[in-house]
This record gives sequence, C-alpha cells and structure tokens, in this order.
Amino acid sequence: MTTREVLQAAKAAAGALAVLGSEEKNRALLAMAEALTGAQEDILQANREDLEKAAANGMPDVMMDRLRLDADRIAGMARGIREVAELPDPVGAVISRIERPNGLVIDKVRVPMGVVAMIYESRPNVTSDAAALALKSGNVCVLRGGKEAFGSSSAIVQALRAGLRREGLPETFVNMVPDTSRAGANELMTAVGLVDLLIPRGGAGLIRACVEQARVPCIQTGTGICHIYVDAAADLGMALNILDNAKTSRPSVCNAAEVCLVHRQVAPVFLPMLAERLTTARAAAGKPPVELRLDPAAAAIIPGTPAGEADFDTEFLDYILAVRVVADVREAIAHIAAHSTHHSEAIVTGDAGAAGLFTASVDSAAVYVNASTRFTDGGEFGLGCEIGISTQKLHARGPMGLEELTSYKYVIRGSGQIR
Amino acid sequence: MTTREVLQAAKAAAGALAVLGSEEKNRALLAMAEALTGAQEDILQANREDLEKAAANGMPDVMMDRLRLDADRIAGMARGIREVAELPDPVGAVISRIERPNGLVIDKVRVPMGVVAMIYESRPNVTSDAAALALKSGNVCVLRGGKEAFGSSSAIVQALRAGLRREGLPETFVNMVPDTSRAGANELMTAVGLVDLLIPRGGAGLIRACVEQARVPCIQTGTGICHIYVDAAADLGMALNILDNAKTSRPSVCNAAEVCLVHRQVAPVFLPMLAERLTTARAAAGKPPVELRLDPAAAAIIPGTPAGEADFDTEFLDYILAVRVVADVREAIAHIAAHSTHHSEAIVTGDAGAAGLFTASVDSAAVYVNASTRFTDGGEFGLGCEIGISTQKLHARGPMGLEELTSYKYVIRGSGQIR
Repeated sequence: MTTREVLQAAKAAAGALAVLGSEEKNRALLAMAEALTGAQEDILQANREDLEKAAANGMPDVMMDRLRLDADRIAGMARGIREVAELPDPVGAVISRIERPNGLVIDKVRVPMGVVAMIYESRPNVTSDAAALALKSGNVCVLRGGKEAFGSSSAIVQALRAGLRREGLPETFVNMVPDTSRAGANELMTAVGLVDLLIPRGGAGLIRACVEQARVPCIQTGTGICHIYVDAAADLGMALNILDNAKTSRPSVCNAAEVCLVHRQVAPVFLPMLAERLTTARAAAGKPPVELRLDPAAAAIIPGTPAGEADFDTEFLDYILAVRVVADVREAIAHIAAHSTHHSEAIVTGDAGAAGLFTASVDSAAVYVNASTRFTDGGEFGLGCEIGISTQKLHARGPMGLEELTSYKYVIRGSGQIR
Repeated sequence: MTTREVLQAAKAAAGALAVLGSEEKNRALLAMAEALTGAQEDILQANREDLEKAAANGMPDVMMDRLRLDADRIAGMARGIREVAELPDPVGAVISRIERPNGLVIDKVRVPMGVVAMIYESRPNVTSDAAALALKSGNVCVLRGGKEAFGSSSAIVQALRAGLRREGLPETFVNMVPDTSRAGANELMTAVGLVDLLIPRGGAGLIRACVEQARVPCIQTGTGICHIYVDAAADLGMALNILDNAKTSRPSVCNAAEVCLVHRQVAPVFLPMLAERLTTARAAAGKPPVELRLDPAAAAIIPGTPAGEADFDTEFLDYILAVRVVADVREAIAHIAAHSTHHSEAIVTGDAGAAGLFTASVDSAAVYVNASTRFTDGGEFGLGCEIGISTQKLHARGPMGLEELTSYKYVIRGSGQIR
C-alpha cells in the first residue's frame, strides 16, 4: 500500500472507531497487549535486524540503547497498553449543557479528532504507546516512526493489528506508513481532509519541518529551553536543589533546565554554591560535571566557559548550563520572553510579589514557583499518560493526555424551532 | 509602517494587554465606543470615498450595501463594543486545580493567545467587532480588512486607537495592516513567532489560501454546506418549516441549508410539499422562489433542475437547494460524510434511534435534531458574541466566543519539590 492508501483506509475506519463504546475499546486494548506479548520472538528478531543495520551504520551507543528491545521492555509496552485501558474514556462526555429560552437544549459533547498522525524518532515503544492512546481516545492512528526502527515498529504494529482482528475489529484502527522516506512524512503533513491532527515528536529539525510544511492541523511539541530564575528572595539551598534536579536528573529530556538566571544581589553567594554542586562535587563523585557557560557578570564570580550568544538559545540536552546574572525579576522575565521556547520555566523565591509577577508574565506552558521544571509531564500532572508536550497555544498546551486528543461537537435537540 | 513593523509592535504590546485587569479593559472598551461615535463624521467621509471608488469599479449593489455606513450603523458598532464590555472576562479563570501527593498545586489558568490576526472582507463593522472581542479576551489584534473598505476601516481603527490613548493605554493594542495587497495577507499567514492565532473570515477562496499558505496557527471558519435530512419518521409539517427557515430566512450566511436529503418512504408526500412552499407559494407572495436542483429520484416526483454532481458540493449562498432521495438514515449519514464542510447538519425525525445514530455519526460542529441549522451562532448558543464559526476540530469548533480566543497555562506552586 502507498502512504495515500494507508491514509484513505484510516479515514474510512475513523467513523466506526469514533462510535465504539468504552468496553469494546478496553477489550481491544487488552487483546492488543496480549498479542504484543505473544509476538515477542518476532519483535525481538526484527529488533535484532534493526540493531545490526544500525551498528553497521555507526549509530552511537546512546541511540542504540534507545532502539534496543528485550523481553522486559516488551512486557513494559504491554503493561503500558493495559494501563491505558484503565484510564477513563474521554469520548462522549457532555462538557456543558445549556437550555435556551426557546427550548433548544445544546450539549457540548467530547468527540475524537478522527485520524491522528504521529511522526516520531527512534524508540520503538512509542509505537505501542501512541497506538493505545489514540485507540482509547477513539482516534484512528497513522504512525510514522524513525527509519532505524522500521522493522521493530512494523513487527509491533503487526502484533497490535492481530489483537484487533482477534476482537473482530478492523485492523485499520492502527496504521503505519509503509516507507520511512521524507516523502512519506511529507505526505502526512499535506494530507488535507485525511489527517485531522498531526503530532510530531522529535528534535527541533522535525518540529520546524512540520511548522513549515504542514497543511493539516499540527501541534508543535517538545522543544524545551527551560529557565530557572533564582530571585533575590530565594532560599538558596532550595534553589540549588531545584537547579541540580532540573539540570542533571535527566539532561536529555525536554523539561530539563538549560539556563539559570540569577538575581545580582544573590549571585556572589549563589554562583559559588552552584559551581561547587554542579562541577566540583559531581566530578568528585565520579559523575559527569556540568559545563557552565557564563555571561560576563557570572564569569567575574565563578570559573567557566564564556557564553556565546547562541548559548542562551540552545536546547543542549546535555550536561551544559548557560548562566546569566540579571538585575531583577523583570529582567529575568524579559530574558525568558526573548529566548524561551514556551515550555517550562521556574522562579525560586520567597517573595509573593515576584512570584506573582513571574507567573502572570511568563508566557510558557508550565510556570513554576519553587519547584523543578522536571515535573512537566502527563503522569506528574495527573493526566495518567502523555502523548507529547505542546509548546503552542492553539488547542492544547503543556502535557497532552487523552482529552487533548479529542475535539467536541454541539448536539442540539429541539422540537421544531426555527430562527 | 510596514506590515512586519506593525506585527512587531503588536507582539511588543501583547505582554501588557495580557495582564491588564478586567476593569481597565472595560474602561478601554467604553472609551473606544465613545471615540467611535465622536469620529462619526470622519468615518462617514472615509466611507463615502470608499463607496465612490467601489461604484466606479462596478461593485454590485449587495456588496455596496455591506460596505455602506450611516449614523445608525456607527451607533450599532459602538453599542456592540459596549455589549462586549458587559461580557464576563475569560482571562485569569482557574479552569481546574489539582493538588498532587507531593504537595504541588497545579492550576490550569486561562490566558490570552497573544497576537490574534484577522483577515476579512468588505463589511467595515467587523473591524470594530473584532477589535473589541480581541481586547476583551486580552489579545492584541492585527486586522486586515477588504481593500474596498480600507478607508472606512482605517478611520474606524484611528478612532478606536484615540479611545485607547485617552485611557493612557498603548494604541498598539489595536492594529491594522497598512496595505491591502495579497503580500500583506501573506505576511500575516507566515509571521511565525509574531502571530499566535490567525482567523480568516470570508469566502472559500480565502480559507483555502490560509490552509495552504499559513505557517502560523490558523482556524478555518465559515464555509457551510449544511444538510437537512428528513427522516421516514419525521413530522412533515415540522420538517417543512425547518427546511424553509434554514434555506430562505437568510440564504447568504454560512448556517443556511444548501442540501435537503429525504427518506424515500416520505419523498412522495414531502417533496410536493417542499416544492409548493419553496417555489409556488413564494412566487405567489412576491418572494424569490428557490431553485430546486434534483437528483433523478426527486426529479421523478417534482419539477426542477436536474442536479449536476457539483450541486452537492457547492455552498450556493443563494435561493438554490440541492435535493436527494436516500434509502435511510445511514445513506444520509454517508452522503453527509462525503459532501459536508462539517459546519451544521440537521435530522428531522420522531425516531429516537435514528436521531441517536445521526448525532453520534455526523462529524460536524453542530448536529441538530428537529431544529433549524440557522441557530449555529455565538449569540444563539449563549456565548454572548461571535468572532467566527470554526469548521475544524483543533482548538475550537463551531461558534467562537471570548473563551475560544484564549489558551491556558499551568501555574505550579511548590515548596522546593524535585523529581
């Protein structure tokens, strides 16, 4: 099948999935989970072949690890599908009801989007996660994973479709783009009328390509140049713990901090604490030290690399932190407005006025007071799951769960009303 | 100023408007309304010049009427602004609050989009409506009206800005694109990072151009190929009233019906009633009769024009109705799925099963049971106002009021939590 044919089959299946009841969807999810476990050997074999090709192509170790599956990881994927079955069904909920003076009853009812397309990169487990979340929210999915994981993802999708067939449901509820060329991705981006929502998950290049080329509704996700601002009124010990956590607990993720802004009044005390914790102490403990890229005012206080202008506009995803001294909370807010990707930012302060100004003025999906930016996550926000983190303002912002994969329609019941 | 400079000025003003309180916004709206009335002579003079040019260019009478302003219409525009001041402020509302086991308090707070751009056509009153709704929802607007109304719209915007200045507020809260070339519209569509939401209001050509060319978040509005399905179990008198109202009460608007689908069991009785009411009776009353474009089964029952295939895919916006006989509610649903613009559709039936199947299966913004499609309107839906009717599923669907001009952000308050 061509990508176009896959999209047409997906569109044709959308009506049936949209009206499927919660129980049927949950049974389908459990069957998909079981089929996934049952297909373990096929999936591992396909994954070994992917890994061999990747090794031959010189893929770095960290990427190889993302691509690698084993029995535990497949069990984890199946468990993930079963957890999605446990989540409440967002579809059909009446969001609001009004009765008009003319007797019309207007219900705003939650409905699926229809066909949700996802473009993502190497981790094959995204394939089963995305399929499960789409199905639970009543959406037919069209998946386009990374080319390095093509064999693994194909084997996973085959298993999921076998599970659907076993429940007597169309296998076209879960679809995969048959090629991994750029043309295939482009076809998803431009399939007006066939794709109701496109979610790209990946690096800045992929997101930019979607913004530039997509003609279908699209949600920008993920890129996070997150800031921690340490105010004059901060508890400096708390600030240090938050910064350490936000920078070093998992530097490769989008909610990790990339920039620290420090109020000039506390910079002479705080910056030496920061340098000690993130460089000296880490090195002494055998952990990778954080490279500090310092503006001139910070460089006058602690040792580090002089920051180039690009350092305040880079998602390092690594043990690197850009540091700038600011005059006050307003300068911190202005810096964030100029350099942020509108993902997550935090202020550490004991001053309610500074906190209020920061949360009101910073235009990002998640704005924290006295907590780490690492909490920007569907699970941590109580959504139960996550399909991505939106950094745009249209439709959904921040972590996207099942509800964010839905739209609504108005159902109006009357008794012959005319206008 | 160039369009780019206007956009930059708008973006620079967005932060200040986003945090403006409800009272200040309402005072600004009242000042804008007063300034508009005060500038009546200037606006009427500019409008006379627009009208003269339009007449010289051979503009049709119906368009001339849309363009024409008088003292009453200006008073109506000012009244419209004052009514927006009376509406509740959507900004700042806490949509939901959760407290996590770790003590984090996560508020989902309604916030403005930022910069909202609108591209619209000839009616100059849209200029003041859009400016008022944007300001009330905390958004800076960038307006790009039709070129025929450029002088009138400029005079209106000048008056609104004078009102803002009188309140000590930046006039850049309300902006107008300085030229009406296609290049100007294109610059709005592609101003990534400067435009947070683009709303095109106008004909199918404008909407298509935005879908194809926009790189900024955009909402498709307006195009309505609306269907009325008369079921076997319909009260035929009710069906006739609803169809008459939906077709003839205001044929030029997007929620008017364009297609009637009739169950074959009632077609022999209903179609002659329809022909009598929409053609013979109207002609006898001196009203424009409705031209009926009939599929072969309908043509075997009543006189009319044979329908071409395009007639079921055309937004006539005129006294024309396409008519098709269908086997049952499922065929009606399938026809709508293939031909609708996902705006508004209605079923007339006394059968709860047919009504339930129709409302569950028809994938449109507004789905009616026993009522006219003409109710799809912000005012009729209790939103208090309307900036447009979305026919897409991302973000907002159906009539868009003040809330639909907002986004949200998460504000998370902690006491040093790390992950």
